[in-house]
Amino acid sequence: MPKIVDHNAQKEKVAQAAWRVIHQHGLEYASVRNIAEEAGLSSGSLRHYFATQSELFAFAMKLVTQRVNERISRISFTGDVLKDAPLLVDEILPLEEETRQEMEVWFAFVVKSFSDPTLGSLRSQVDEDMRRLFSTIVHALVQQELAPLQLDQELETERFYGLIDGLAMHAVMRPEKLTPDLMRSVVKRHLYSICKPEIAAACLSGRDPKQP
Amino acid sequence: MPKIVDHNAQKEKVAQAAWRVIHQHGLEYASVRNIAEEAGLSSGSLRHYFATQSELFAFAMKLVTQRVNERISRISFTGDVLKDAPLLVDEILPLEEETRQEMEVWFAFVVKSFSDPTLGSLRSQVDEDMRRLFSTIVHALVQQELAPLQLDQELETERFYGLIDGLAMHAVMRPEKLTPDLMRSVVKRHLYSICKPEIAAACLSGRDPKQP
Repeated sequence: MPKIVDHNAQKEKVAQAAWRVIHQHGLEYASVRNIAEEAGLSSGSLRHYFATQSELFAFAMKLVTQRVNERISRISFTGDVLKDAPLLVDEILPLEEETRQEMEVWFAFVVKSFSDPTLGSLRSQVDEDMRRLFSTIVHALVQQELAPLQLDQELETERFYGLIDGLAMHAVMRPEKLTPDLMRSVVKRHLYSICKPEIAAACLSGRDPKQP
Repeated sequence: MPKIVDHNAQKEKVAQAAWRVIHQHGLEYASVRNIAEEAGLSSGSLRHYFATQSELFAFAMKLVTQRVNERISRISFTGDVLKDAPLLVDEILPLEEETRQEMEVWFAFVVKSFSDPTLGSLRSQVDEDMRRLFSTIVHALVQQELAPLQLDQELETERFYGLIDGLAMHAVMRPEKLTPDLMRSVVKRHLYSICKPEIAAACLSGRDPKQP
């Protein structure tokens, strides 16, 4: 009987080995040979799954975003953007050791993408998707009459998205300082800063902003 | 007569060659041999200035922060934090092609610093210095009675600093979208969002916030 190997599961195993090598030694150490060794495969068998290092990197990079998307898809949204936006951001920010390592590897790929066109177009796609999430939050704040009608939505989208990526990077750099609690408070404070002053005041004092 | 070579100028020349190699091909391509070639030196002469690649990287990383610090030291501050903070941030954010390349190289070093202890301690130092700048801005907003006395200054420091690092990364990723004008508007809007509502309203409508 032929040996049955789940092709996709093997590819994921290899991608996770790549993450570990990148996390421990840096991207320039992530040669096909070192990744194969970490995955417990020969370089030859690894090439059965990925013809080139670039293909492997693209798959490993995609896997990071898949993880985030899966986590987001499991959220039970309430329909109230002031409650839903923090739930969403919780799945993007690295709040635990595991997601922090994912984020660290993600940043390594982002930097690599500046000089690698395949990773570059992948990164642009993810960047567009992420930007759209924040644009949706900002739009919902206006639609639900929590933020003023004349809000500059493009500006607020960049401001929110920029903050979250900066926090994510700082959480990788200084996990002891940027605790999950601090990051969540920063996110809430930021969300309120986009709202009308009376809504922000109600939220900050713990009142329901939809009750007068 | 012996050949007189400015040791420091030569080191800077090498560091800039390293930046170019990193910018064009990525950090994993920045071997001593490739950097020497880019600098127009033999690997042997390069080792006269830097014994190891790690030493070279540390010098090249420090040079990026020196550039930023020099630009900041040339600012004529007014004493009014609502005017001074945007001047300061202007020298941190990559608003031009040259500073964008510097920032791109900086992020490559940041990622490398996750697995290189020498670069790691350098990065921590810079991170602390940067954080202090934003803490000073937030503190001045309270002192000049522009922000409320009960402001959570630690939270606002992380929020401002996080935003600026996120914007910097996005400006490297999407320079065509994150134009200098847009980034400056985001920064101003953010600064006002830390202020008292009446101060923010005055600033947004173009009035002097210190006149009733």
